[in-house]
Amino acid sequence: MLTETPNATSRVEVLDRLRSLCLEHGLERLAVDLGELIGIVQDDLVQLEIELDELRGGERLSERAAAHLLTQGGKRLRPLCVLLAARVGSGSSRPAIDLAVAAELVHNATLLHDDVVDLATERRGHVAARAEYGNAASIFAGDWLLIEALQRVRRAAVPGTLDLLLQVIAEMIRAESLQLECRGRLDTRRDVYLDIAEGKSATLFGWALRAGAAAGGLGPAGCAALGDFGRHLGLAFQIVDDLLDLTGDPAVTGKALFTDLREGKMTYPLLVALERDVDLRAHVERVLDYARLGQEPSLDLCRIVQRRLHESGAVAESQTLAAAEIGRARACLAALPASEATRALELVAEATLHRRH
Amino acid sequence: MLTETPNATSRVEVLDRLRSLCLEHGLERLAVDLGELIGIVQDDLVQLEIELDELRGGERLSERAAAHLLTQGGKRLRPLCVLLAARVGSGSSRPAIDLAVAAELVHNATLLHDDVVDLATERRGHVAARAEYGNAASIFAGDWLLIEALQRVRRAAVPGTLDLLLQVIAEMIRAESLQLECRGRLDTRRDVYLDIAEGKSATLFGWALRAGAAAGGLGPAGCAALGDFGRHLGLAFQIVDDLLDLTGDPAVTGKALFTDLREGKMTYPLLVALERDVDLRAHVERVLDYARLGQEPSLDLCRIVQRRLHESGAVAESQTLAAAEIGRARACLAALPASEATRALELVAEATLHRRH
Repeated sequence: MLTETPNATSRVEVLDRLRSLCLEHGLERLAVDLGELIGIVQDDLVQLEIELDELRGGERLSERAAAHLLTQGGKRLRPLCVLLAARVGSGSSRPAIDLAVAAELVHNATLLHDDVVDLATERRGHVAARAEYGNAASIFAGDWLLIEALQRVRRAAVPGTLDLLLQVIAEMIRAESLQLECRGRLDTRRDVYLDIAEGKSATLFGWALRAGAAAGGLGPAGCAALGDFGRHLGLAFQIVDDLLDLTGDPAVTGKALFTDLREGKMTYPLLVALERDVDLRAHVERVLDYARLGQEPSLDLCRIVQRRLHESGAVAESQTLAAAEIGRARACLAALPASEATRALELVAEATLHRRH
Repeated sequence: MLTETPNATSRVEVLDRLRSLCLEHGLERLAVDLGELIGIVQDDLVQLEIELDELRGGERLSERAAAHLLTQGGKRLRPLCVLLAARVGSGSSRPAIDLAVAAELVHNATLLHDDVVDLATERRGHVAARAEYGNAASIFAGDWLLIEALQRVRRAAVPGTLDLLLQVIAEMIRAESLQLECRGRLDTRRDVYLDIAEGKSATLFGWALRAGAAAGGLGPAGCAALGDFGRHLGLAFQIVDDLLDLTGDPAVTGKALFTDLREGKMTYPLLVALERDVDLRAHVERVLDYARLGQEPSLDLCRIVQRRLHESGAVAESQTLAAAEIGRARACLAALPASEATRALELVAEATLHRRH
């Protein structure tokens, strides 16, 4: 039933892809530097993939649904953050790898539940686990990955990380629930959007960085600085995600245009554009009407919405906010002694801003 | 939106109900003894209800869905087990109450997810949370209660209890997934049924007793004995649950007859009867056919299935197995010094066998 047999070592391609992206963007310097970055955490990332692969092979429907999602790649950005944060301190360790795996598992657990909530049919360019194995299996799969994550954090025994992760997951659930309540509500306020984005995305990035820092033996100030870096990075990541939903290239993102919008999820550029362009609302309502009927919006309608997003300045304003968050993230690094690892984190932040998938 | 405002103190009625049940069954001695039992844990049970009530009042849809279920009563049997096990040792304590609340929360978390999986419309004689607040809210509500439970176990800081609970939840998920795979499969083997019943029911009872014992300061032998007591009690509880689904009085159980069967859940009496009565299969298939069409089976059909369950000896055999499990549970108590608390646990075991809801 499993559709892919990934070669663990090939997954360092995650970093290769980041590098190609920089080259496409004319960021040659960044690309060269990312090459060095690969060297820092290559072994850890290989180990990460080996341990994720070990979760495959279970017979239960829940295990197969989870494996279905886990083996379809993903950017592995959260575990990369854990591993780099650990290297700001004393470097690689068994606990750091456990925490990195846990970060990826929590992320995947939320995707499995979200796809049921959103009745999603695709994920990462493949059929969604819930569409292949059913909603029930996808729910249990999410539950299972959550427990697997917590067991690893428990085993890592890095002070503070388990309690913080429990708080973070509670916050993620609260934010997902708030997002559900705002579904299709074009009058959602920006501060409510930011509450959702921080809860569903920024907190787990914050945990990844802080937990990695703690595994690397950093003190409270270092952990706090990296945790803050993570939250800013996570918020920027989410806003870029929003932009990709509305203006990205589906062939690159692996996700149909307006997927979030059609699920009624309010995104930052959309809310800004709706504030600025009173005529946009009717067009967006039409997209939602199509979605309610299970139909795709016409290409013309998509283009109208996209044009208005650009012309209202909402795209530019969203890019500015994402860039500002990346700036704040980088400023957090200033509290730490410069090292190869802090430089790598800066590059990750920069690449996040320019990512196209 | 909340339909009930329970008075925390009134919930000691859980024990009162157990007592009435004994009286109805002509078990006067048991009823009198249960009266004493109420005295032992009354204050703890009141505190339990206060703490469950504190989870109400959240604004989020997930919180309201969880509160909807939590405020509709339930037997509170798992927390009662935690509290009594603690009293086998040094008695009531802050950690024991945290663990008792956690046991109830994990149970409710699984119900919230199960109801989505089963597309259930009713629970505990009321509209199911997923029917009132939607599947999405019910999924997030289950996630939330799970995290709330784990936070309490973490705070209780009783050695071994968190790791064991994580294992137990993983086992519950595996069993639920296996149950899903056996849905509607009338050829499910008894050993597979027992694997499911132990995973989904016995393990959490086992944890409740063992965790309570550890909170009460018992040593490894005492914890193991009470953990074993719990697993046998839990398996008996499940088999009685199965019997109630097929032969219970809906006015007392608060659950329509054949609810499990119509969801395709294989129960012990049914599997035994199918083995013994080759003509039963066609009737059961008809019940499942009705269920697929969203229709109730006719009263006649129900009576035919019930009669064959009795006449094949499957009901008696299931009662015998439940009684044997209760016997094994009671035997586990022999390893412990006799006390008011061990006597209370014996009574809970006896009442579980005779319960009618």
